[in-house]
Amino acid sequence: MNGAESLVRTMVGAGVEVSFTNPGTSEMHFVAALDRVDGMRCVLCLFEGGATGAADGYARMADKPAATLLHLGPGMANGLANIHNARRARSPMVNIVGEHASFHRRFDAPLTTDIEALARPLSHWVRTGANAMTIAQDGADAIHAASNPPGQIATLILPADTAWGEGSGPVATRPPRARGKVADEVVRDIARIMTTQQNVMLMVGGVALREKPLMDASRIVRKVGARLMAPGANARVARGAGRVSVDRVPYPVDLAVEALKDVRHMVLVGAKPPVGFFGYPGKPSAMTHPDCVFHVLADEDQDLADALARLADEIGAAGIAPDYPERIARPDIPTGARLDADSIGAVLGALMPEQAIICDESVTTGRNFFAMTKAAAPHDWLQLMGGAIGEGIPLATGAAVACPDRKVINLQADGSGMYTLQSLWTQAREKLDVLTLIWANRSYAILKGELANVGAENPGRKAHDMLSLDNPALDWVSLAKGMGVEASRVETIDGLAKAMRGALSRQGPCLIEVVI
Amino acid sequence: MNGAESLVRTMVGAGVEVSFTNPGTSEMHFVAALDRVDGMRCVLCLFEGGATGAADGYARMADKPAATLLHLGPGMANGLANIHNARRARSPMVNIVGEHASFHRRFDAPLTTDIEALARPLSHWVRTGANAMTIAQDGADAIHAASNPPGQIATLILPADTAWGEGSGPVATRPPRARGKVADEVVRDIARIMTTQQNVMLMVGGVALREKPLMDASRIVRKVGARLMAPGANARVARGAGRVSVDRVPYPVDLAVEALKDVRHMVLVGAKPPVGFFGYPGKPSAMTHPDCVFHVLADEDQDLADALARLADEIGAAGIAPDYPERIARPDIPTGARLDADSIGAVLGALMPEQAIICDESVTTGRNFFAMTKAAAPHDWLQLMGGAIGEGIPLATGAAVACPDRKVINLQADGSGMYTLQSLWTQAREKLDVLTLIWANRSYAILKGELANVGAENPGRKAHDMLSLDNPALDWVSLAKGMGVEASRVETIDGLAKAMRGALSRQGPCLIEVVI
Repeated sequence: MNGAESLVRTMVGAGVEVSFTNPGTSEMHFVAALDRVDGMRCVLCLFEGGATGAADGYARMADKPAATLLHLGPGMANGLANIHNARRARSPMVNIVGEHASFHRRFDAPLTTDIEALARPLSHWVRTGANAMTIAQDGADAIHAASNPPGQIATLILPADTAWGEGSGPVATRPPRARGKVADEVVRDIARIMTTQQNVMLMVGGVALREKPLMDASRIVRKVGARLMAPGANARVARGAGRVSVDRVPYPVDLAVEALKDVRHMVLVGAKPPVGFFGYPGKPSAMTHPDCVFHVLADEDQDLADALARLADEIGAAGIAPDYPERIARPDIPTGARLDADSIGAVLGALMPEQAIICDESVTTGRNFFAMTKAAAPHDWLQLMGGAIGEGIPLATGAAVACPDRKVINLQADGSGMYTLQSLWTQAREKLDVLTLIWANRSYAILKGELANVGAENPGRKAHDMLSLDNPALDWVSLAKGMGVEASRVETIDGLAKAMRGALSRQGPCLIEVVI
Repeated sequence: MNGAESLVRTMVGAGVEVSFTNPGTSEMHFVAALDRVDGMRCVLCLFEGGATGAADGYARMADKPAATLLHLGPGMANGLANIHNARRARSPMVNIVGEHASFHRRFDAPLTTDIEALARPLSHWVRTGANAMTIAQDGADAIHAASNPPGQIATLILPADTAWGEGSGPVATRPPRARGKVADEVVRDIARIMTTQQNVMLMVGGVALREKPLMDASRIVRKVGARLMAPGANARVARGAGRVSVDRVPYPVDLAVEALKDVRHMVLVGAKPPVGFFGYPGKPSAMTHPDCVFHVLADEDQDLADALARLADEIGAAGIAPDYPERIARPDIPTGARLDADSIGAVLGALMPEQAIICDESVTTGRNFFAMTKAAAPHDWLQLMGGAIGEGIPLATGAAVACPDRKVINLQADGSGMYTLQSLWTQAREKLDVLTLIWANRSYAILKGELANVGAENPGRKAHDMLSLDNPALDWVSLAKGMGVEASRVETIDGLAKAMRGALSRQGPCLIEVVI
């Protein structure tokens, strides 16, 4: 058994069941091994950012790593932006990057690059396979590294001769470290602060935003009269009717500062102190008041659910009912209303089906969607975590691979969508149950605001042209059709509701371009 | 005047006239400065690989750098694959990469990355601007570095506060180093070798593939009875009727070894010893015979044209007529023939207009195009230099910006084209005179061959699926229409000839999907 097959069997043995692939010549033995070995689903992506973004979406929903298969340094480079996003989401991921055969490297063939140097800035673990006999162990080490909490990026560089040479056969993968338990004294300290101090906020992030820990978080703040909040962007939030609703720190600096201005004690549970997405002239980088003191209940790699449960016990909140948004009615469809962000939010809140997975790269259009959907049917909400736009379509692709029985709805800004539109083809090929809603404002709307924010007033024609996607307008119906995805265009709120109802009533990929 | 405007005025003063931009928030002051300052054309790209690939195409045709404008580390990462290609093409390029304001970096906001670490592996020159007063000088240094022969990648990282703070005003840019002259004794040594040895090949690359130095190269080999060849891939070759025709080293290892097996002395002029694109089990990495001795007439940063002229003088070849392919008739249109690589090559050879710029990312389909077009109307032929597929559409975009009076023809494989199809929109917006011919074989055809090459026989369904782009077939007519580019589909050679004639008779972007 060669190195490639030893590696693939090691991966399958460790429960890595999906590979998002964009292979090249140097990976042909690995491709042949994938072909021979049962148990690994191979999902072809037509651009590497589609593969890495899909691996992120998969990991968020499956709570385990997918593999990617990338082609040398440039293939790795093309995948880096969504690796950055996955890294910020703390998604486990195993990147297999093909490399020239060891003996060929010194010839400096055209594709030769320093792959380790490209991988290292955005990977937690990087290794170049030394030979075919040890490549399976390298793979096991990569999976172990990726799976360690809170989730890591592991990149294994695979010289072609380590794939084609005689290998070791499969090896066992060590299970990941368990999430560390928070010390009793930390729980007691935080309990004391929360019960004795005023203007306390519980800031919950990471896996504390799943259903059960959010219930404990809600009990805690109700008991002590504190506030509950989540960071501006989150990898996955369990929400909807019958679940705790948690507001997020707003994106605009002024609104974030306003929202947090009274907080003097912030208890962090898998979250970091909130900071501005960008720095602006004359505006603060920290969103909290200068007198705010931070207290860490649990770091992101610790057992957040356990920490919250114990804190609830410690302060006697276990018997308290969490604050469910059940009193809030699901919104009605605003028939005949103007098509805008609020009416779209209402349609989403009304129509999102039970157990939908929402992949949100709405950027400006979607800033109020969260509020409008808090009483929708129970769902998971996934956001762009690293700010590198172009993740929505791949993220939805990967989430749909992980959860074939759930409807995935991708809320997608048009400018961002164009970065990785190739993933629509993967949705068509794999017949994934993804509804993509494109917010076609035909501009980088966020940048028009930002141009004013940085004090650059009265933009002229050149600046306008650099921020506008009209002339020509992108035609997303044609783009989707070109990749085999059924699509339609709507320009009214009634049209959107009707098209969404149609799309939700059947399986398979579908795109609606919403002209706003 | 702020730092951004000081920088833009410095760039315009140094003759940097075009910026291929994909801006974000951190670059808004730079965008505002571009808006205020005359003399810089801003070309919006919807993906960073489109910007960097266009800068490569521009530099190859304008013989000077364009700027790119990229958004922090992920934006840089998205541009790296085509930066790699440009680096291998020795294209000068000035990348301006926005970065968080200096005071904001330590807050580790979502988009924070180590941009220098990402830039360094593929840049010759990297600097992070320290403050607004020195950023213009940084820009001048970047342009100087980029312009030094044979052309370099310079990456200037621009913290937002160096853009918005009070700047120095524009500064002057040092002119680039001149190309070094080859020493007389080197010319004499090479002349002696070429006149006394048998089985000599003159391998010419880089700017030695322009019209005049190729004439001298041809005189030299005719005089001494040597062979003339060029590397497998070249940044720009002047060719067609009335010009010297030069064959390239074939891509497949066996053919390359066969072509070079008799060579015992290889004289290198801006070229490297030929090596295999990849290493294969049991096949050599060097394409030359083990007994072949290499002699360097001139390195790629030296004055190659001068070196060839002096070598021609030294061996008394100055009066000899170069070997023009005028005796070869331009091919006829093979009316009624089967649509295949040969008949397509004949149509290209017959119809390519005077001074066409051919951007060739044909991959497998185009391996015989070079031979079929040697007697076409005079033209320049540009190839993918770094092997990172997804450069053709951006390259054509940049070449068309550099040469608005010439027709650009992009010979584009379908799988490769999908990586950076967004550049079609830029062609539409800028009304660039580019004809894109898509070779729709609906597979990664090169990989099907490579799978056999590496000894992985009898691929099964999973391997087939990873190398096939059917199911669903990509519909390039819809994709082009979605980005505002007129398109048609042809399935016969007569249809291709008719569609090409139509496209060549008018201006502006156009795409023909050729189903093969």
